[in-house]
Amino acid sequence: MKVLVINCGSSSLKYQLFDMETENALAKGLVERIGIEGSRIKHTKAGQDAVVTETAIPDHKVAVKLVLDSLLDGEHGVLSSLDELSAVGHRVVHAGEKFACSVRLDDAVMAALKECIPLAPLHNPANITGIEAITSVLPDVPQVGVFDTAFHQTMPKHAYMYGVPYRYYENYKVRRYGFHGTSHFFVANRCAEIMGRPIEDLKIVTCHLGNGSSITAVKDGICVDTSMGFTPLAGVLMGTRCGDIDPSIVKFIAEKEGSVDKADTILNKESGVHGVSGISSDLRDIEDGMEKGDERATLAFEMLSYSITKYIGAYAAAMGGVDAIVFTAGIGENCKAIRETVTENLGFLGASVDKSKNDFRGEERIISSDDSKVKVMVIPTNEELVIARDTKKLVSC
Amino acid sequence: MKVLVINCGSSSLKYQLFDMETENALAKGLVERIGIEGSRIKHTKAGQDAVVTETAIPDHKVAVKLVLDSLLDGEHGVLSSLDELSAVGHRVVHAGEKFACSVRLDDAVMAALKECIPLAPLHNPANITGIEAITSVLPDVPQVGVFDTAFHQTMPKHAYMYGVPYRYYENYKVRRYGFHGTSHFFVANRCAEIMGRPIEDLKIVTCHLGNGSSITAVKDGICVDTSMGFTPLAGVLMGTRCGDIDPSIVKFIAEKEGSVDKADTILNKESGVHGVSGISSDLRDIEDGMEKGDERATLAFEMLSYSITKYIGAYAAAMGGVDAIVFTAGIGENCKAIRETVTENLGFLGASVDKSKNDFRGEERIISSDDSKVKVMVIPTNEELVIARDTKKLVSC
Repeated sequence: MKVLVINCGSSSLKYQLFDMETENALAKGLVERIGIEGSRIKHTKAGQDAVVTETAIPDHKVAVKLVLDSLLDGEHGVLSSLDELSAVGHRVVHAGEKFACSVRLDDAVMAALKECIPLAPLHNPANITGIEAITSVLPDVPQVGVFDTAFHQTMPKHAYMYGVPYRYYENYKVRRYGFHGTSHFFVANRCAEIMGRPIEDLKIVTCHLGNGSSITAVKDGICVDTSMGFTPLAGVLMGTRCGDIDPSIVKFIAEKEGSVDKADTILNKESGVHGVSGISSDLRDIEDGMEKGDERATLAFEMLSYSITKYIGAYAAAMGGVDAIVFTAGIGENCKAIRETVTENLGFLGASVDKSKNDFRGEERIISSDDSKVKVMVIPTNEELVIARDTKKLVSC
Repeated sequence: MKVLVINCGSSSLKYQLFDMETENALAKGLVERIGIEGSRIKHTKAGQDAVVTETAIPDHKVAVKLVLDSLLDGEHGVLSSLDELSAVGHRVVHAGEKFACSVRLDDAVMAALKECIPLAPLHNPANITGIEAITSVLPDVPQVGVFDTAFHQTMPKHAYMYGVPYRYYENYKVRRYGFHGTSHFFVANRCAEIMGRPIEDLKIVTCHLGNGSSITAVKDGICVDTSMGFTPLAGVLMGTRCGDIDPSIVKFIAEKEGSVDKADTILNKESGVHGVSGISSDLRDIEDGMEKGDERATLAFEMLSYSITKYIGAYAAAMGGVDAIVFTAGIGENCKAIRETVTENLGFLGASVDKSKNDFRGEERIISSDDSKVKVMVIPTNEELVIARDTKKLVSC
């Protein structure tokens, strides 16, 4: 069985084609900077070098077509026909309380996901566009949605409720949902494997740090708290999202800008690392700015590392300690400066970083010193594999 | 020199008359439930029993007149004439970045404080009403404003900046200010005295828990972070304020209620412990509800203790450890269940509570066990004394 996994972000699309007999990825790739100047597709057939094609990619539909073309390509492709595809699994960001596990996609599910757009205005439209593009090209291939919110459904009520009038939960289901659940699930379980201990005995903080970022407290194998909330806007400082702010600031910005919709757009698309630094939402650009002595780049870096530090401390308190900290996703896997700064801040917990072990990008490694009481590690996330497994399971029923 | 200190809250007014030669309070009192059924004034002349008078107190002006009448009362008063008053010092909640220390009040200062009303919609109007009532009765007595925001001006920029576009700081000074500064300053310094160590060597988390609540990280004697923010709406769950929420919820509520102003009112006045429990904003009522098995009362208690626990963990991370935790203000001084629950949650930091030592209300005591690595204590706050000292200093210049 061959399963294609699609992970549409706000400006990116990751894909992998899995052979589910072996769980090997036959090909994978990344479409970057969708809708932004400099867009490109990086396609890699297993065992070959990556092929990067720079081309205009104005939207996610064009991106999906490029992915299918790459999979069929005579030289770099892995399919001779799209008929070989047994199923497509999609990462979908927000399912509210509608779905607590993965589901086969049909018209009713699609309608439900569209209802969730206001909850994830950057993400659900991209996810839905990806599904619809696949549907138009491959109408008979079953598709599965795997939800970022599912892993977090175990949070206790005192962690997922907000201090707003209770009727907002009863009537509108306003509560903390959390996102990146597939990633947190994967890296937490992989962390326990690496440590050689049952996850049921571990207190793990997983830091998924990318363009969107979230931090999760995983105690005894289940999520007990997570930094994103009702929507993916809350938590640590992100690429263009503000993260946690005084809620009064929303009203303040709405009054200055003329509407709460405008404020919402600013907080989702013009804030975070981009808004603070004035340079970029990409931490690589921020590190370049810091090297040049740019004060606001340095401020953005310090705000990001400080907000991560505080969340780890808060979750240590929530779990009554911490055995391991995992860094994953774009920043977590590739930015050694963030990993080093955060780990050094956590010396009071017994965490210490071995700088020589931390000097790398994008691999699975332990970066804490041998005598560190808290194991600190980098685990490249593999949401795609989790999605492929769930997709296989659901289409095999 | 006799100095009257006025501390107007949203529904309460505390006062003390100090003899500044001795720093003794000659009389003190509390006006409670202003604008709420069951309002009353509790007046205590030093060395006498308290006198409680239940009467209608529709607003803060009536409250101020009752205070002055009590101070002049033939039996329970301490003044023969209001001419004996040398100065009046006021707690004022929000001074933006306009005042980083206490100031003499004049027309220009009052105008500045009125400009700050949008930043503290529950508090500054009450503070201003108190000042204006004094001015109308005692036009020639100098008055001083002591600001809740002053102590927090030492926060580093990465702690006080928000992840919103930088122009909101440059143009409108949107940043974290913090409140209850006078209280945090007092109890942190008193904590160091009790420990017999210089405050410059200590990491202290001060928990001011009342109808409004804030938690502050005090490292080496200065504030490095605090849970309230741009306004007093942010931070832990409060009596009627929501504390930290996903900022997207503001837009959601604004759309349901028809305006962002309505949402702001709901988040300030109908949320928090009151909004979650549906019972009351008063933790005594919540504890009664818990005894009766009320699920939402229990939820409100658990959300409150959990949010305090997480802040202490976050601030331990921010400071690289914690030597002492101080509980103060109405809930901190009087609710042993909150103190016990929070301290027990912090066992991983080496904190442990001695339940027999914790079984009291409203006194200065250490409640941690003798072998607790973190000293945990209750210190009744004395913002009034700090205000009286600042007032004396400023009118003596």
